[in-house]
Amino acid sequence: MTRRRKIYEGKAKILYEGPEPGTLIQYFKDDATAFNAQKKGTITGKGVINNRVSEHVFSRLAHIGIPTHFIRRLNMREQLIRQVEIVPIEVIVRNVAAGTLSKRLGIEEGTPLPHTLLEYCYKDDSLGDPLVAEEHIACFGWASQEEMQDISSMAIRINDFMCGMFAAIGIRLIDFKLEFGRLYDGDFSRIILADEISPDGCRLWDIETGEKLDKDRFRRDLGGEAEAYQEVARRLGLMPEEGEGAVLDMVTHRLRKGK
Amino acid sequence: MTRRRKIYEGKAKILYEGPEPGTLIQYFKDDATAFNAQKKGTITGKGVINNRVSEHVFSRLAHIGIPTHFIRRLNMREQLIRQVEIVPIEVIVRNVAAGTLSKRLGIEEGTPLPHTLLEYCYKDDSLGDPLVAEEHIACFGWASQEEMQDISSMAIRINDFMCGMFAAIGIRLIDFKLEFGRLYDGDFSRIILADEISPDGCRLWDIETGEKLDKDRFRRDLGGEAEAYQEVARRLGLMPEEGEGAVLDMVTHRLRKGK
Ligand SMILES: Nc1ncnc2c1ncn2[C@@H]1O[C@H](COP(=O)(O)OP(=O)(O)O)[C@@H](O)[C@H]1O
Ligand SMILES: Nc1ncnc2c1ncn2[C@@H]1O[C@H](COP(=O)(O)OP(=O)(O)O)[C@@H](O)[C@H]1O
Ligand SMILES: [Mg+2]
Ligand SMILES: [Mg+2]
Repeated sequence: MTRRRKIYEGKAKILYEGPEPGTLIQYFKDDATAFNAQKKGTITGKGVINNRVSEHVFSRLAHIGIPTHFIRRLNMREQLIRQVEIVPIEVIVRNVAAGTLSKRLGIEEGTPLPHTLLEYCYKDDSLGDPLVAEEHIACFGWASQEEMQDISSMAIRINDFMCGMFAAIGIRLIDFKLEFGRLYDGDFSRIILADEISPDGCRLWDIETGEKLDKDRFRRDLGGEAEAYQEVARRLGLMPEEGEGAVLDMVTHRLRKGK
Repeated sequence: MTRRRKIYEGKAKILYEGPEPGTLIQYFKDDATAFNAQKKGTITGKGVINNRVSEHVFSRLAHIGIPTHFIRRLNMREQLIRQVEIVPIEVIVRNVAAGTLSKRLGIEEGTPLPHTLLEYCYKDDSLGDPLVAEEHIACFGWASQEEMQDISSMAIRINDFMCGMFAAIGIRLIDFKLEFGRLYDGDFSRIILADEISPDGCRLWDIETGEKLDKDRFRRDLGGEAEAYQEVARRLGLMPEEGEGAVLDMVTHRLRKGK
């Protein structure tokens, strides 16, 4: 508790100083927000699941050669990560129209896109993370052209991998959000994947029923958000370990009963 | 009157069938709209001035090798143009932060941009002409990559020319909007500049006083919009011809008196 310094507290996670220079501890909260934090709530057990799902996805992405900040999971809610300088751009990868894209361009939710679409938003809560183009990124120097080249080609590879991973467990990957950061080595830096990949930042629809298994359950007051997150973890083969604590047991109670 | 067919009536102009196939007549109205036509009004004599200013700018752009739809001015409010298939993208060229850019990214109006910024908006009034990136344009096939290459390089050249032209008459070119179209020649098409260039689609600030000489006077209820448009025409050397009619005389009365 006292031995570590809090670096940053965000909407869904807390960053603490790590055990070695250049490392951080990422703590996953159950806090949920939507519409730029205008809507606030809690999804019980979400932090535990997101920590596990993100560990799972980042480890497998490392296997196909995507460099990530993930080092190892420490416990139910914490993982050790490499500290990076976050590129202030949220990368949104879209396969099917939904959410703000549908609204902005008048395309019905669920319409498959002609091809995968990368969108960039400037990461600034006070401005509502506005959509920007590569021209803005270049104009204001938020990332270099070489960095954007690395970011976009990684985003496309990550999408291909995740489409396959989710298709294998009966889930359609509609869209998701990525964050990247600069890992410094002296004066040089390279781009690696940071933050998290979890149902918080993905739209995941059951292939058969179309049921939403992601944060839209919370955004749109559909109910059953904790169960949806749990279902994603379950399908990924991430069943809770024995004795992982009361919080998760509470959530998974119904699922274990065979719901 | 009866001899020609109306093809389209927009917010500021009417298009009539032209005398020869592949031509149109562009009629400039005094109607003014702002904020996606939520605000409506009239700027007396605006159509006459915009017809003249657009003739002037398009003719000079042709001299530096920018292909345009302009053929010749027919009368006070009409010009003969080549019919094109409009690319449904509004190109916004920005040198200084203002308007929606300032609002969207929280940059104070009047802040010079690190370098010229091209923005693209999808031309759809019902959606409020939303900002898009080249990724959206490619994804939905609104223009090919070769066409976007032509459009962006022409936009940059047009900006350089217009910055020079306006600087010479004591005006700072803050930003402006362009539209391009496809001119077909059999199965082939090439991109040419279309629509208009006038104080309706430009932000023009007096270099000395910072006074706005453009449609922001109307958008922001500053008054004196007719006089501002007239002042731009006057500085460009486009004094009204003798006998061009009562409408314009009315507007220019004060200016002629030596205001
Ligand atoms: N490896 C990393 N190094 C430094 N910062 C990181 C790293 N990974 C993620 N971050 C940042 O930590 C924060 C994670 O907490 P979160 O609750 O998601 O915050 P926010 O409310 O800003 O989205 C984010 O601001 C994210 O950009
Ligand atoms: N050369 C051209 N050929 C065909 N259409 C054109 C040409 N130049 C401009 N246009 C279109 O004509 C219309 C001009 O009228 P305007 O009042 O500006 O319409 P809007 O309300 O759609 O902006 C615009 O829709 C513009 O895209
Ligand atoms: Mg976050
Ligand atoms: Mg128009």
